[in-house]
Amino acid sequence: MELYHEITPEGFGIAIEEDKHLFSDKSPYQTVDVFHSRAFGNVLTLDGLMMVTERDEFFYHELIVHIPMLTHKNPENILVIGGGDGGTVREILKHKSVKHIDMVEIDKMVVDVSKKFFPTVSNELDNPKVSVLIQDAIEFIKNKENIYDIVLIDSTDPIGPGEGLFNEGFYNNVKRALKKGGIVVPQTEGPFGQSDNMKKTYKLLNKVFKYVAPYCSPMPTYPGGYWSWGFCSNDVEPPLDYTKIDEKRADEISKTSKIYNREYHSSVFRVPNFVKELAKG
Amino acid sequence: MELYHEITPEGFGIAIEEDKHLFSDKSPYQTVDVFHSRAFGNVLTLDGLMMVTERDEFFYHELIVHIPMLTHKNPENILVIGGGDGGTVREILKHKSVKHIDMVEIDKMVVDVSKKFFPTVSNELDNPKVSVLIQDAIEFIKNKENIYDIVLIDSTDPIGPGEGLFNEGFYNNVKRALKKGGIVVPQTEGPFGQSDNMKKTYKLLNKVFKYVAPYCSPMPTYPGGYWSWGFCSNDVEPPLDYTKIDEKRADEISKTSKIYNREYHSSVFRVPNFVKELAKG
Repeated sequence: MELYHEITPEGFGIAIEEDKHLFSDKSPYQTVDVFHSRAFGNVLTLDGLMMVTERDEFFYHELIVHIPMLTHKNPENILVIGGGDGGTVREILKHKSVKHIDMVEIDKMVVDVSKKFFPTVSNELDNPKVSVLIQDAIEFIKNKENIYDIVLIDSTDPIGPGEGLFNEGFYNNVKRALKKGGIVVPQTEGPFGQSDNMKKTYKLLNKVFKYVAPYCSPMPTYPGGYWSWGFCSNDVEPPLDYTKIDEKRADEISKTSKIYNREYHSSVFRVPNFVKELAKG
Repeated sequence: MELYHEITPEGFGIAIEEDKHLFSDKSPYQTVDVFHSRAFGNVLTLDGLMMVTERDEFFYHELIVHIPMLTHKNPENILVIGGGDGGTVREILKHKSVKHIDMVEIDKMVVDVSKKFFPTVSNELDNPKVSVLIQDAIEFIKNKENIYDIVLIDSTDPIGPGEGLFNEGFYNNVKRALKKGGIVVPQTEGPFGQSDNMKKTYKLLNKVFKYVAPYCSPMPTYPGGYWSWGFCSNDVEPPLDYTKIDEKRADEISKTSKIYNREYHSSVFRVPNFVKELAKG
């Protein structure tokens, strides 16, 4: 049995038994691979780095989506940057208030591969509420102003095509694109295993947004098994008290979720001491 | 560079670059190995399964210890079952109320190896407040009654020497050994990667104790990167409201901790939906 590995520069990582390689090609941006595994079903990697597995993708997608969506009182217009696999869009569409989603993904091959090999992840990409825009988000976001209630930055690591998405100028453009009461959530790397990346990211976010709060939750196939996202806003405080989250909306989402529930919503902001330190930037 | 692997029966797991093998021997109970790695410092495995690393042991030891210790009003007399590396004892001794710890470890080789290769973990095993008892905990606990404020079951997986520690009769004996207001915390396996083990464990715990609540936190080198412990008591409810935790005691512990803080204390009980399901047993 062949083993797929993602080993971090620190010298550890995940190993997955690979049954069968299903796809391998180079896009203009990166090498795209799909293999099947007994443990995780189909697995997508970009430049050899773990992106999505059928079995554990919910750990990531529920967290990047439902925390900001249920903190916002009435999220209607949403921007997803990256997220070409479609899992983030799928979770957003569970919220009845949503009128439109722009998904800006630079690499068409990621979208095509996800439609073919990850049908349970990509299944809402053709929803009429969704515009899939194949273009560079760095260009797209320039000169956008007062448009979105929620912006989710569902990016790769800050190397390769994702690098420009960890940048002060980019975050300022994202901030300008927000409506009043808007919330931005970027993925902010793993607190254990990618702590340097995380620290650098918060250094930038803290410069740009008034409220910046890391939240953490497990993510089995990412380095260290533990992931972080950044709750960022200019006028919405982090939701530290779950009793202020609308119970009816939260319970509706919880019913379709493997992780999300209203109590969990606030608990993810109560982070370990070493994560607080990293989030100082 | 040689890679150490622990691959679960499901077909995935951790890989660590091994610089140098430092120790390998068979005890009467298991094969004991120690190697050095750039990522984690020294690493202890038993029968090839990950037990302790110098770099991430705090994720486990802070959680098994500080949650019950700070929930209890005045923990004086403590029993540790297993825990031969000494990390659990080290964390317990940070609590000023402690008068005595019995540590019952079946395998002397684990204690000896930890003293030699894990000095920052085992450094309190010679503390005069600690009795290290090399014997079978299953025998030790029979006929003990009304003795301990806290019992921590810091065991291996339910195979090999740890198997008898996941057993209704054993849990009943542990219950009898508790004083009024006492709390038992066993490690209860990984919710992702060892979910069958976890479910079976809660089936037993739910039969024996009045209050049983799982709590979860990351543990990078264990299968799935996410771990669970069971808060069990007959007369103490799980600490869902951190404002009821003594602030002064909690802050003292937090100062020496990489993870523990008072807000985190309660958040670990707000578990994902799929963990709630597993904990029904």
